[in-house]
Amino acid sequence: MSYPAVPVQPAAPRLVRFGILGCADIARKVSRALLMLPPGAATVAAVGSRSEDKARRFIAETGLPAARPHGSYESLLGDPDVEAVYLPLPTSLHVPWATAAAARGKHLLLEKPTALCAADLDAILAACDASGVQFMDTTMWIHNPRTAKMREIVADKDAFGDVRVIHSMCGFRASEYFLQNDIRVKPDLDALGVLGDVGWYSIRSILWAVEYELPETVIAHRHPVKNQAGVILACGATLYWADGKTATFNCSFLTNLAFDVTVYGTHGTLHVTDLVIPYEEKYGEFSVASKSNFVKPTIGWDPLPSKHVVTTDLPQEALMVQEFSRLVQNIRDAGGRPEGKWPAITRKTQVVLDAVKASIDKGSEPVEVAS
Amino acid sequence: MSYPAVPVQPAAPRLVRFGILGCADIARKVSRALLMLPPGAATVAAVGSRSEDKARRFIAETGLPAARPHGSYESLLGDPDVEAVYLPLPTSLHVPWATAAAARGKHLLLEKPTALCAADLDAILAACDASGVQFMDTTMWIHNPRTAKMREIVADKDAFGDVRVIHSMCGFRASEYFLQNDIRVKPDLDALGVLGDVGWYSIRSILWAVEYELPETVIAHRHPVKNQAGVILACGATLYWADGKTATFNCSFLTNLAFDVTVYGTHGTLHVTDLVIPYEEKYGEFSVASKSNFVKPTIGWDPLPSKHVVTTDLPQEALMVQEFSRLVQNIRDAGGRPEGKWPAITRKTQVVLDAVKASIDKGSEPVEVAS
Repeated sequence: MSYPAVPVQPAAPRLVRFGILGCADIARKVSRALLMLPPGAATVAAVGSRSEDKARRFIAETGLPAARPHGSYESLLGDPDVEAVYLPLPTSLHVPWATAAAARGKHLLLEKPTALCAADLDAILAACDASGVQFMDTTMWIHNPRTAKMREIVADKDAFGDVRVIHSMCGFRASEYFLQNDIRVKPDLDALGVLGDVGWYSIRSILWAVEYELPETVIAHRHPVKNQAGVILACGATLYWADGKTATFNCSFLTNLAFDVTVYGTHGTLHVTDLVIPYEEKYGEFSVASKSNFVKPTIGWDPLPSKHVVTTDLPQEALMVQEFSRLVQNIRDAGGRPEGKWPAITRKTQVVLDAVKASIDKGSEPVEVAS
Repeated sequence: MSYPAVPVQPAAPRLVRFGILGCADIARKVSRALLMLPPGAATVAAVGSRSEDKARRFIAETGLPAARPHGSYESLLGDPDVEAVYLPLPTSLHVPWATAAAARGKHLLLEKPTALCAADLDAILAACDASGVQFMDTTMWIHNPRTAKMREIVADKDAFGDVRVIHSMCGFRASEYFLQNDIRVKPDLDALGVLGDVGWYSIRSILWAVEYELPETVIAHRHPVKNQAGVILACGATLYWADGKTATFNCSFLTNLAFDVTVYGTHGTLHVTDLVIPYEEKYGEFSVASKSNFVKPTIGWDPLPSKHVVTTDLPQEALMVQEFSRLVQNIRDAGGRPEGKWPAITRKTQVVLDAVKASIDKGSEPVEVAS
C-alpha cells in the first residue's frame, strides 16, 4: 500500500528580529528601510536608548508599533527577542557595545566609521567571530544594483582595461549648527571627523574600484582643516599601489554636497557623481567611456561616452538590511556560516583610513598601509 | 558755404596674414580654423617647412591655395607678407624660432607647451615685448563660450561660494606608434612629455578655476611613469594655496581619453568632462550643483544638479584665431597695445608646470611656486 504524496508547504521564512541600539538620525533611515522589506525578511523588535522615553518617541515617530522600548543599551541587549542589532552609536562607543552585542550572540549591523582604528575594529570582529554572528557595516551604496553594474563594467578587461587612476570627492556643506554640535565634530564621540564620516565612502569607493587590493602607501595632503578641538573638517590624500596605480580623494564638511568617484582605466573611464546618496532614491545613473578616440583633427570624440541607468524597486538601504537579514536567516535556519566578505572589506577600509589618519598626524609623511 | 556731409564707408578690416611655421598635425586643425573665419579676419599667407615640398603638400592638403610655400623657417620669417606666425614646432625649438619671429615684428601664436621652462618662456615674452607684438598660446578651450559661461558660474559668490578643491584629469591612450615615435615622448624635442602636453591643460584649468591665483606649493605624486629616455608618460600632483585651497591633477598618455575638471566650492560644484576637446565641435555641456541639500532622511538631493548647454557657431580653435586676429588688427590698424592677459596666463601656467617638473625631479619634494 502506498500513501499519496502530500505536498509539503515550505515554512515561511522566519523574520529576523532587529534591535536598534541608539536613536541617532541615521537610525530613522534604517528603520524606514526595514519597514520597506517584503514580508518574511525582518522586523524591528526593540529600540534601546539612554531613556525609555526617547526610545518610545522614536518608535512612535518612525512607525514601529511592534517594537519594545528599552531605557538602556544593556536592557536592549538582554532582550531575548532581539536577534540582530543595528548599532548607530557614536564611534567611540562602538567597541564596548558592539562586542557586548556579539557576546550576547546578536548579529551586528554596525554604522560607519566602524571604529576609531583598525585595532578597535579587530576587537569587534573577534567578538563576532567568537560568537559566530554576522557582521556588516552600513555602507549602503555597496548594495545598490547600480554598484554591481558599475563593477561589471570596471572589471571588463576588454572595454575598461586596467584601472590606473581613481579620484573621489565626498562631502557636504555642514550647517553652522552641525559644525558646533554634531557628534561628528566632537573629539570624544567621533574623533575621525569628516575622514570617518564621508571620507569612509571615498576610501571604500577607491578600494571597490580596485577589487579591494590594498594600496602600499598613503600620503595625506597637507594642511587638513580642523576645528578648535582638533577634529578634521576637510582633508585629502593620495594612495599608491605597488603596480603604479594611484588614487586621490578629498572629503569635506565645508563644500557643497558631492559624492564623486571617477575611475580611469587603460581603455575606459567611469564617472558617477552621486555614489553614496543617489540623486533620486530608486534611480541611478553613471557614465562610461570606452576606447574613446579623437575625431580627426582632434575636433570631437568617437565613440561618445554612454549614459547608463539602473533602477531599483528597493532603495539601497533596504537592500542592505535585506541582504543582512538573508545572511542571518541562513545562519539561523540553514546552518550556514557568517559571510566573511563583509567584515573583510570593512577591515580594509578601516586599515586605509588608519593610514590616512596616521599620515595626517605625522604632518603628511608617507605611511605604509598595514595588511 | 557748407559742404553736404558725405557718408564715409568704413574700410573693410584688413586681413591678418598668417605664416604657419612647421607642418605638425596640429597645424592642420589651426589652418582649418583659419579657413572658418568670417571674411575680413585672417588668411594664411605662407607655410614654412624644412622642405618646400612638404610645405607645398601641406598647402594642397589643407586647402590653402593662397599660401606661399617656404623651404625653411628662416625663409618664412623673411616673408614681408607674413604679419603673424603660428608656431607649432617641437617645444625645444620654441626659443630660437619664437624669438626670431618676434624680432622680425611678427605677432606670435605659440603652441603649448610654450617652453621647456619659465626662463625660456621669459626670453620669448621679452622678445615679443621688445617688438610690441601680440603673444598668445594655443589653449583653445579658453576661447570656447562654454568656458566663459562656466567662469560666470564659478565666480558667482552666492551660488558657488569660494572654490576650495579642484580636480582635473587630462589624458588619452596613446598608440604604440605614438609611444615610440611621437615628438611628445622624445627627450630632445618635447622633454616635458605628458606634463607639457595634456598636463598643461590640467594646470591651466586649475588656474582658470581660481582666477589665476598662483598656488604657493606644489608636490608631485610619487612614481611618475617615464619611458626609457626618461620622458614622463603619466604623472600627477597636488597644489596648495595660501588660503587652504587645494587641487590635484593627473595627466596620462596611458589611460582612456579624459578631459575632466571638477571644481568644488563652498556652495556649488561644477563638473565638465570634455573641457579640452568637447565631445562635439559646436556643442558643450557641463553640470552645476548649487546649495544642494539632502532630501530627508538622506534619501536624495534637492535641488538636483542642472545641466547647462552652450552652443557655438565657430569651434573654439576658430574663436581663438579670431580673437588673436582681432588683437593684431587692433595693434596694426588702431594703434592699440598688445593685450597683456594672454602672456600673463601663459606664464602662470608655465611657472606651475615648472614647479611640478621640479618636484618630480626631486622625488616628490615640495616645491615653492615662483612668482
